[in-house]
Amino acid sequence: TGVATVKFKSPPVNSLSLDFLTELQISLEKLENNRGCRGVIFTSAIPNVFSSGLDITDMCGKSMEHYAEFWRAVQRMWLTLYGSNMVTIAAVNASSSETPSYPAGGCLFALSCDYRIMADNPKFFIGLNESQLGIVAPFWFKDTFVNVVGHRIAERSLQLGLLHPASEALQLGIVDELVPEEELQDKAAAVLAQWLALPDHARQLTKSMMRKSVLDRLVTHQEDDVQNFVSFVSKESIQKSLRKYMEMMRKRKG
Amino acid sequence: TGVATVKFKSPPVNSLSLDFLTELQISLEKLENNRGCRGVIFTSAIPNVFSSGLDITDMCGKSMEHYAEFWRAVQRMWLTLYGSNMVTIAAVNASSSETPSYPAGGCLFALSCDYRIMADNPKFFIGLNESQLGIVAPFWFKDTFVNVVGHRIAERSLQLGLLHPASEALQLGIVDELVPEEELQDKAAAVLAQWLALPDHARQLTKSMMRKSVLDRLVTHQEDDVQNFVSFVSKESIQKSLRKYMEMMRKRKG
Amino acid sequence: TGVATVKFKSPPVNSLSLDFLTELQISLEKLENNRGCRGVIFTSAIPNVFSSGLDITDMCGKSMEHYAEFWRAVQRMWLTLYGSNMVTIAAVNASSSETPSYPAGGCLFALSCDYRIMADNPKFFIGLNESQLGIVAPFWFKDTFVNVVGHRIAERSLQLGLLHPASEALQLGIVDELVPEEELQDKAAAVLAQWLALPDHARQLTKSMMRKSVLDRLVTHQEDDVQNFVSFVSKESIQKSLRKYMEMMRKRKG
Repeated sequence: TGVATVKFKSPPVNSLSLDFLTELQISLEKLENNRGCRGVIFTSAIPNVFSSGLDITDMCGKSMEHYAEFWRAVQRMWLTLYGSNMVTIAAVNASSSETPSYPAGGCLFALSCDYRIMADNPKFFIGLNESQLGIVAPFWFKDTFVNVVGHRIAERSLQLGLLHPASEALQLGIVDELVPEEELQDKAAAVLAQWLALPDHARQLTKSMMRKSVLDRLVTHQEDDVQNFVSFVSKESIQKSLRKYMEMMRKRKG
Repeated sequence: TGVATVKFKSPPVNSLSLDFLTELQISLEKLENNRGCRGVIFTSAIPNVFSSGLDITDMCGKSMEHYAEFWRAVQRMWLTLYGSNMVTIAAVNASSSETPSYPAGGCLFALSCDYRIMADNPKFFIGLNESQLGIVAPFWFKDTFVNVVGHRIAERSLQLGLLHPASEALQLGIVDELVPEEELQDKAAAVLAQWLALPDHARQLTKSMMRKSVLDRLVTHQEDDVQNFVSFVSKESIQKSLRKYMEMMRKRKG
Repeated sequence: TGVATVKFKSPPVNSLSLDFLTELQISLEKLENNRGCRGVIFTSAIPNVFSSGLDITDMCGKSMEHYAEFWRAVQRMWLTLYGSNMVTIAAVNASSSETPSYPAGGCLFALSCDYRIMADNPKFFIGLNESQLGIVAPFWFKDTFVNVVGHRIAERSLQLGLLHPASEALQLGIVDELVPEEELQDKAAAVLAQWLALPDHARQLTKSMMRKSVLDRLVTHQEDDVQNFVSFVSKESIQKSLRKYMEMMRKRKG
């Protein structure tokens, strides 16, 4: 039918580790290069978490080379997803984060799709919470967010690192639609079918026209952005606060 | 009173053909150069259709020269309207398209005015439906649309080539106000009077400041944009799909 | 507690005169350079007026040098406030203007803060009303406004020089929240506390990332913008309309 579903399954919380990103990247590129595949739904196979975000263990206590490799994997995933020729639907069937949470990767993933449907559950949250962890969302996370919610909402939400409950996410435009949890997958399939009713070529050119300037900005500054991330994350003050955060997470779970 | 009303009357469906565009352009420039004219209301003299959009007959089975001439006329109209020193009000007293419809010109016309009032009739639709026909809205249609509704709504609406019913158009900001059909012309006149209460010079400079960057982008790339349109529309695959579309329209009407 | 409150008190209507701007600038820079101060609330100590806006007496009947000095003070205040490392909250406890009013400075001040709370009083208005006085908001007023409310709303509001009542200001996003007048200061303190719960460094870098391009645009064109203001405001036609306006204000008050 030309449709794929990608189910995140990286226990315990679908954190975007270097390993999981690499695996995801291979799947995405396979689908992208498969002319038979025209649309894809992203959802989670793990209860209560869509994706907990970027894996802090890849950002803490590792070498500069490791940080750089990790960040290139994050960039690559976003460039592939945000620039995808396929119709991309996020079926957010759980939180894009835990509390306490990893930073923001699940929300970025959803924001980079063409359409976001979220399960209508007040326990599910979504947002770019980097500030809460003392780190800063990179400019292309910000650009993607501004494209979705506009400048005012992005400015406040990013400064405060807010995780928005589902109903607020709908109101702010972070997600396009809320549906009861049990109807989420059917709804995602129905929305995808609506998008696939359009001729691919015109839709793809239109999407590319809308997203090109933001994609180009990262492409132009890709290596600077890696250096930026590496030098920021390897600062002793940042390492210290990430270690503290990981300990706190371990204790809450213990 | 310094006020003009331009009534579209190009039977049967006010499609923006090369002839109609040329006529419209002459009227617009006359008003623009008439220092006595400070504001203009655009509406339709034909029941049930505001403007059905760009005329496909000018895009199908003609010479490259014809396509280029047609496209220059579309560009010229938009540059004049979007950059007008007059206050421009769209009184959308019918659909900006038929079903099946021509592409998008009626909606672009309305989006380029200062203010859009639409008759509150669930049968009236407005949108940029190019994708539905397998063609792509040019970047300056997109820029104009993004200026009105923001990036997220423009991205989805353009990719899907959506024609929005009046109430949805209001909610998305595509039109500024809905009024009962019989009050539309009076309301447009009242709104225009409100705008004309302002000193012209400050209002004109403010408008120009808001729109200059988007206008300049087309001016800078005008000839590229013509070549783009000509080479796209003259492709055999596009010609084929436009012919099919015209046949479908003929049958539905027959 | 790391928190300051700046109360505007420049009788009778807190107009932003050269003297008051200079005083305000000194206070702001002192707070900015005080590492102990992390957040600031701006409010008015004068009943019924937050700030009546730029003082017309500094724009009328003075020398070119005076106009230039005045405008540099306005620029400096905005650059300091919009680029502030502190959390900035506007507690708009009255109108940002009187009727008839000075132009727009109070609204710009509020728009440049991180968050705007307004007293829920239908008699309080806020907006950028330059057009009403026959003058044009400079591009950086416009940029700040577009960042808050988006292009469509900014275009209409600026062209018409609208002063929006509190409830409309909330709906358009000009202010973030309305509260009963007697709760305004407590609410502002509570919101500030929420913002200060975040680590300063990440929040500051995020804010700078969001606002840098708009700040840089003024920095790059600062002297052009001064020349622009001086040559515009010193035109005999503008001087005449400002004098007329001041007379009208004097009479209404008399």
